[in-house]
Amino acid sequence: MKPIIQLRNPFQQKFLSKQAIATLSTPELLQRLNFVQKTQSGLFHYLPLSLRILNKITGILDTHLQKNLKAQKLSLSTLSSKSLWSRTERWSNTELFKLKDSKSAEFCLVATCEEDVTELMRGHIDSYKNMPCVVYQTSRKYRDERRPRGGLLRGKEFLMMDAYSFASTAEESLQVFNETNRAYDLIFKELKVPYVKAWADNGDMGGDISKEYHLVHESGEDTIFSCSHCKNVFNEEMAESSPLEEGAMSGDVNVKYALTADHSTLICFYFPADRQINWNNAVKAVDGDVDKKLRDYSNARVLEIFQERSNEDIMFSKVLRVMDCRINSRSNFPDFPLKNYLKNNFGQLEGLSIVNAVDGEKCGSCEEGALTATRSIEVGHTFVLGTKYSELMNLKFKDKDNQSDKLVEMGCYGIGVTRIIGAIAEVTRDEQGIRWPSPISPYLLSVCSVENGTDERVLKVVENLSQSKSLRDDIMQDFSNSSGLGSKIQTSHALGIPLCIIIGSKSWPRVEIEVRGKRWCEDGEPAWIQEHERNKSKFDWDHIPQRDDHLEKHIVSHMYVKEVVEALLKDI
Amino acid sequence: MKPIIQLRNPFQQKFLSKQAIATLSTPELLQRLNFVQKTQSGLFHYLPLSLRILNKITGILDTHLQKNLKAQKLSLSTLSSKSLWSRTERWSNTELFKLKDSKSAEFCLVATCEEDVTELMRGHIDSYKNMPCVVYQTSRKYRDERRPRGGLLRGKEFLMMDAYSFASTAEESLQVFNETNRAYDLIFKELKVPYVKAWADNGDMGGDISKEYHLVHESGEDTIFSCSHCKNVFNEEMAESSPLEEGAMSGDVNVKYALTADHSTLICFYFPADRQINWNNAVKAVDGDVDKKLRDYSNARVLEIFQERSNEDIMFSKVLRVMDCRINSRSNFPDFPLKNYLKNNFGQLEGLSIVNAVDGEKCGSCEEGALTATRSIEVGHTFVLGTKYSELMNLKFKDKDNQSDKLVEMGCYGIGVTRIIGAIAEVTRDEQGIRWPSPISPYLLSVCSVENGTDERVLKVVENLSQSKSLRDDIMQDFSNSSGLGSKIQTSHALGIPLCIIIGSKSWPRVEIEVRGKRWCEDGEPAWIQEHERNKSKFDWDHIPQRDDHLEKHIVSHMYVKEVVEALLKDI
Repeated sequence: MKPIIQLRNPFQQKFLSKQAIATLSTPELLQRLNFVQKTQSGLFHYLPLSLRILNKITGILDTHLQKNLKAQKLSLSTLSSKSLWSRTERWSNTELFKLKDSKSAEFCLVATCEEDVTELMRGHIDSYKNMPCVVYQTSRKYRDERRPRGGLLRGKEFLMMDAYSFASTAEESLQVFNETNRAYDLIFKELKVPYVKAWADNGDMGGDISKEYHLVHESGEDTIFSCSHCKNVFNEEMAESSPLEEGAMSGDVNVKYALTADHSTLICFYFPADRQINWNNAVKAVDGDVDKKLRDYSNARVLEIFQERSNEDIMFSKVLRVMDCRINSRSNFPDFPLKNYLKNNFGQLEGLSIVNAVDGEKCGSCEEGALTATRSIEVGHTFVLGTKYSELMNLKFKDKDNQSDKLVEMGCYGIGVTRIIGAIAEVTRDEQGIRWPSPISPYLLSVCSVENGTDERVLKVVENLSQSKSLRDDIMQDFSNSSGLGSKIQTSHALGIPLCIIIGSKSWPRVEIEVRGKRWCEDGEPAWIQEHERNKSKFDWDHIPQRDDHLEKHIVSHMYVKEVVEALLKDI
Repeated sequence: MKPIIQLRNPFQQKFLSKQAIATLSTPELLQRLNFVQKTQSGLFHYLPLSLRILNKITGILDTHLQKNLKAQKLSLSTLSSKSLWSRTERWSNTELFKLKDSKSAEFCLVATCEEDVTELMRGHIDSYKNMPCVVYQTSRKYRDERRPRGGLLRGKEFLMMDAYSFASTAEESLQVFNETNRAYDLIFKELKVPYVKAWADNGDMGGDISKEYHLVHESGEDTIFSCSHCKNVFNEEMAESSPLEEGAMSGDVNVKYALTADHSTLICFYFPADRQINWNNAVKAVDGDVDKKLRDYSNARVLEIFQERSNEDIMFSKVLRVMDCRINSRSNFPDFPLKNYLKNNFGQLEGLSIVNAVDGEKCGSCEEGALTATRSIEVGHTFVLGTKYSELMNLKFKDKDNQSDKLVEMGCYGIGVTRIIGAIAEVTRDEQGIRWPSPISPYLLSVCSVENGTDERVLKVVENLSQSKSLRDDIMQDFSNSSGLGSKIQTSHALGIPLCIIIGSKSWPRVEIEVRGKRWCEDGEPAWIQEHERNKSKFDWDHIPQRDDHLEKHIVSHMYVKEVVEALLKDI
């Protein structure tokens, strides 16, 4: 049945000037191009264009996680109860959005789901036979971000894929971790935009193996370090570095105080004042014997705790001095905080690197290569969790040997879906606008005609394209009727649609295809060249390479537009 | 690349006894069959089986709303700001979940999105040329329900499709309303379960036209009335009825007090004590001149307000008595509340019906037919909203005549997606379990073999079925390895999978197909019968009809199982 009434699209593109497109920030551009609508700091409505991207990314995740990896997809409640988060001591997290219902029961909006999924699996895992298994979801998460920024990069509400693995041994857990990382590689390869995988720190998550997935971009908040020799890549927390020359620094020295786990010893970490301490390396320097809870306490507060602790004479207190290998005895040290002390109770560690790496230093991992620092945007993270959550939440199973109180080995895995949109927009944009890789582009191509409204020629081209199932629902032709051909084309390019088919009355029965999309796979000959060789006479197919400010163009008989579009899209 | 490690499904069905399946409530059954996991009253995790159903329903909605109706799909933020809800005076709603962020900004979790969508469209609708248009989403909604009940039927968090229409005239708005209702009809027809459409009351939504979509079931909370003559169906609020004989009731009379809009007149609605007042009809009886805010106030409180109001002698107060047509002067009236009054200031209305209809009464709409009452579960609702929200939120447009301050005419439309799952489970379940209509069944068929693990025969059958793209991803074969053939089949039936393919070693190379699914389209000959006639010898296809407690069965060569399954599914 044909509808009686023709509905219109209220989100038709309004024309943006070249000047505006070139100068707007990426978040502003995404809003002006009707991808999203910001409602408040860190909160967005997803309009049809960005929802199409979200659905495509979600589909790619499902292909690799559900179909190939055989992970189970589910959808957990967004409201999680205080009692669960209290058991893992995470309720006090000040970035959780919290609320009460009418009966004063307390909830948070989930920021991540270790608590809920561990509790859920207590009802489903009772034997080694149920494992290994992975469950995942792609759902909205919430974080009461103090300073939302970068548009979709850091918001209060965001779409995240979170997966959780369960295994009966640490070895099996590592296998699942590796397998999931392999799925991640396939996912990020499918997104086409180059990514980098870095060893990362587990932080408060528990466990001891962790990888981050980054898109490289100079505007990124993160820094990753890659080694020219061992080829390892580390995030800033994990990167160990050595200076080109030890003890060469003679300027001001900074200090960070810490206490050993039993609070018996004051640890003084000394490092160059123009560098930042690397907590991870500092902790490693003292073999992990640090009260990690004091990490963010001021030096004064740490000293206070140290002095409060003992009723003994402070003179007998133990002190451990850890010297970053960059400083030397002529460096300008800060005053020592204790007035009375015994030299005998002093220890000193030297030759260690306890600051964040900088570009050009030696790799602390292989001690051979040089580290290159690169700015990047983190878009995915994988963790081996160990038994932290299964222990706190009592997730146990019966093993082969009938032993029934073994703790489940867990892992967790996240991909920021809305973040990927923001990051890819940022990474790919140029002075003409956004440039989506074809697998996540809201539409694969646009059809722009000099005519407005229904046009015999447009219908023919769309009908031809629609023979392909993968193109049928990916054709954008809904430009504002009041705009001319030039601004339609410009809008298509600004939106980042990979191909723009231009139908003019002069060139007909041939049409022009402008290539806005980028060829990402640059190793080897792009697939379209072979197709062109084979079919150029049959399709009446001319190729005009990119030059100056003109995009690459293909001119082809309208009867073969589908074949040419399919060939061109293969590399984009 | 084949995975190195084989992941398992932790949500494999645990065997439920026939006794358990037959006696559990539907919500309990959905939980025990691993469709959902209740976390707290009114909150659920959706496990893989119910997520598959959700996705299928969402797909059906997208087909009819996005593809056919050309509505624009978007996804609004779940966090909506207090300032928007204050403008429509709905912030005080006690069923809204409310929360604050770290900067004390106040939000609610959206229960519905008139506020947000009207505000959003202020940036996109400025001319009659942008209209008519419809936007919609299928997203989680929240209601701080005091008494969550019926499992998925009434929860605190639920998935809802909500659509909003925008038109330049009331007439155009009505056209869109009708068109959207036509899409609703197609959606509910595709769900196969019989539904009823009833005229409904707009309540506080504004506007004056509204329809409800109900699934009929004796456990339903709602009552709908259908007329034997005019064939209209009304929900309880909208049903007008006449008694078979007026004034025939002589027992106790109840009274409900109200005030006119200006509070000058006390209205006394008198009606039989064994019936319930119908507010809608009561308001109509006095031509709408009622202060609707006092609707839920006690009689004592209404009297207080009436008496507080005037410093004048209460003797001169005006009183209007409205008599339900069922009572007569010999009925047993309650005491009149005012001690001093002037008979001259009394008005009286008689012969009107102001109570809820009951089964068997005359239809008040046509005054001809008899009303039949049916219990039902409301699953969808459509409203003409008029200009209530566009006025409160200043959504105006420039009309053809260049007049630029015209208010947009709106409509809104909802379908409870998780509610549909709960309702259809309830409506279709029998002593063997749930019985999903094939368009929303988590799987279309199961494959059950006497063998466990990999089995040559199972592989052959699955390979044959997988030639069909629509079957490929809809085959369930993941039964617990420890269960025997009988309990696999029983589990498949309990889960409500329409067809169960049984592979036994004796019958091979033929397989049995048990039909658990119901034939919903019972007008005309089911499609499979023709196919059977045409192909029975080629497919070696025997048909064993249902008898006693045995399901209908088809026995067929494994080489043609795809064709037979496709034929059988057409009517299920």
